[in-house]
Amino acid sequence: MKVFAFAGSLRKGSLNHQLVARAAAAARGQGAEVDLARLSDFDIPLYSGDIEEQQGIPPGVMALGERLAEADAYLIAAPEYNYSIAGPLKNALDWISRIKPVPITDKVAMLLSASPSAVGGERGLLALRTPLMVMGCMICPRCFVLPLAGDKFDAEGGFNDEKWDERLEQALINFLANVEALCDR
Amino acid sequence: MKVFAFAGSLRKGSLNHQLVARAAAAARGQGAEVDLARLSDFDIPLYSGDIEEQQGIPPGVMALGERLAEADAYLIAAPEYNYSIAGPLKNALDWISRIKPVPITDKVAMLLSASPSAVGGERGLLALRTPLMVMGCMICPRCFVLPLAGDKFDAEGGFNDEKWDERLEQALINFLANVEALCDR
Amino acid sequence: MKVFAFAGSLRKGSLNHQLVARAAAAARGQGAEVDLARLSDFDIPLYSGDIEEQQGIPPGVMALGERLAEADAYLIAAPEYNYSIAGPLKNALDWISRIKPVPITDKVAMLLSASPSAVGGERGLLALRTPLMVMGCMICPRCFVLPLAGDKFDAEGGFNDEKWDERLEQALINFLANVEALCDR
Amino acid sequence: MKVFAFAGSLRKGSLNHQLVARAAAAARGQGAEVDLARLSDFDIPLYSGDIEEQQGIPPGVMALGERLAEADAYLIAAPEYNYSIAGPLKNALDWISRIKPVPITDKVAMLLSASPSAVGGERGLLALRTPLMVMGCMICPRCFVLPLAGDKFDAEGGFNDEKWDERLEQALINFLANVEALCDR
Repeated sequence: MKVFAFAGSLRKGSLNHQLVARAAAAARGQGAEVDLARLSDFDIPLYSGDIEEQQGIPPGVMALGERLAEADAYLIAAPEYNYSIAGPLKNALDWISRIKPVPITDKVAMLLSASPSAVGGERGLLALRTPLMVMGCMICPRCFVLPLAGDKFDAEGGFNDEKWDERLEQALINFLANVEALCDR
Repeated sequence: MKVFAFAGSLRKGSLNHQLVARAAAAARGQGAEVDLARLSDFDIPLYSGDIEEQQGIPPGVMALGERLAEADAYLIAAPEYNYSIAGPLKNALDWISRIKPVPITDKVAMLLSASPSAVGGERGLLALRTPLMVMGCMICPRCFVLPLAGDKFDAEGGFNDEKWDERLEQALINFLANVEALCDR
Repeated sequence: MKVFAFAGSLRKGSLNHQLVARAAAAARGQGAEVDLARLSDFDIPLYSGDIEEQQGIPPGVMALGERLAEADAYLIAAPEYNYSIAGPLKNALDWISRIKPVPITDKVAMLLSASPSAVGGERGLLALRTPLMVMGCMICPRCFVLPLAGDKFDAEGGFNDEKWDERLEQALINFLANVEALCDR
Repeated sequence: MKVFAFAGSLRKGSLNHQLVARAAAAARGQGAEVDLARLSDFDIPLYSGDIEEQQGIPPGVMALGERLAEADAYLIAAPEYNYSIAGPLKNALDWISRIKPVPITDKVAMLLSASPSAVGGERGLLALRTPLMVMGCMICPRCFVLPLAGDKFDAEGGFNDEKWDERLEQALINFLANVEALCDR
């Protein structure tokens, strides 16, 4: 079982990257092979039908598509911008949906969100579900939402309260069991 | 594998009931055990916290909850009212969410929608996904949407165009494979 | 200018009714004529196309429709059930949408939500906007959300912290200015 | 009254640009001053908190913000990508939301969508409403949706069927009356 993990933010010190890195480590601890990336590793222009028509799908998009295609499942930590999906993440998904077959079809995703606020990014995850499902990706109903995330990590990237480790472990056990079952289809 | 199938409409001649009955027959043809019901079989009052506090969860809700709990998966055909989930279906789900453990948690659903219009009810299904996921139900990304449904059925409840039978068969093959895999978790 | 105010909950001690009653009092203080009701004042069955066909639109729905039609604007305090619109409120709106002309078309609404949780019902308001807009109602972008509402009211139905009074006043000033302007169309 | 009109697509031959140009012409015919732009006129990078921190809000974003701030109202024609808001449009809105005061707060928008498909982009407009409202923009409940848009325009950019001209005229009359009323607040 192979999991591709990334955050939907381009910021270097992104709380969502910290969260997905923590989740990737925990998933490895549970036996999963995890490929951890940053959205900023891929050179993805703003989507334009003109670029697609004149130059085809850009190499950075194809590279992300290959990493997505190689995995059975995804850990996606996504910030909430204006109660909705972050522009750069939606832009990347819009490009990915132009690759045929769509690399995330019939795969399984778990969504996470870290937020500096008390709400934790759940509205952003609601908005994110729609394009993922339309692209054929199955989504685990249980999200992992980390409110007030600025105070939750220690210097090594772990949580500074075991409570959050336990919650993340439980969510991942559920997710990986689903993925393992679905891999055998 | 056991599938509970129902439509989210109270109307006797509901196009969505016709659709889910057709899907139930097709799923049986693929070897699934299907329990086909009507939402109107269950006496479900409008949700009120006062009813719940004074009388507990009503027997009609508990009866629906048991049928949901006995199944591994669901076929739900839902009409679209005002670009959103139909009131009676949302009301039933709100009651069901008060039963602990929530009977649909960790189950799998496939959503269908029949509509007299050319659009086919997809916006209603988008709105339906949210409460189902919050209640822990996994949703197959592929919906089955039947536009202009008033002209699609013959007198025996079959489709009058084989194209729709083939599409429904394909959607059910995908759904049942997912359910079978997830049953073994 | 006439405002119709109600909460989307049937519970007698509803926090949302407390909130909308508080907002109604404040709007009166700003010079608006406010008609405050309870959804439970109206006898509204679960929507069924069969009822509509055989008996027409029920008297309880027509009564609510008249109150909505008489007003220029609405204060609607809505609970969040399963991250979405409450079943009884959606059911009432589905019935109201069957009255022609739809009584809320070209009117203006301000949405409020009280919630016992820290999040405050914003996801429910997001879901509520869709049917209201489809029915032609303009919605003020600023909602008034009251988290942890169980601790916010005093015995007379006022807020026990002036901060909330000030926020509500400000939101109402903005809302009523919009309504007044739009009344002159 | 000043209206800023643009399409949420970067493609030169965008159907949504054709539609918003047609709407701009019709609005001018009704006496409005209309500033018609293309999203591609503004150099807007993918949003990153690092760019904002190190260089501030980019000049292209500020330029778009000024045009938005100068107007009382907006005509926004938006494509639907994966049942949701287009990435480049969401990205632009995310940047705009970082300008304080947010330039679209208390303004009024009418949403349009042209689509090559039979559905017409309504799901994309549902998703677009959320960030606009959160940013304080009031949205006219009536959208203008043009399905099968590839066949609807003549060589001069007009509709080749008067029916669509009449519908657009009616929608604009309603919109501009709302804007005019709200300008006097």
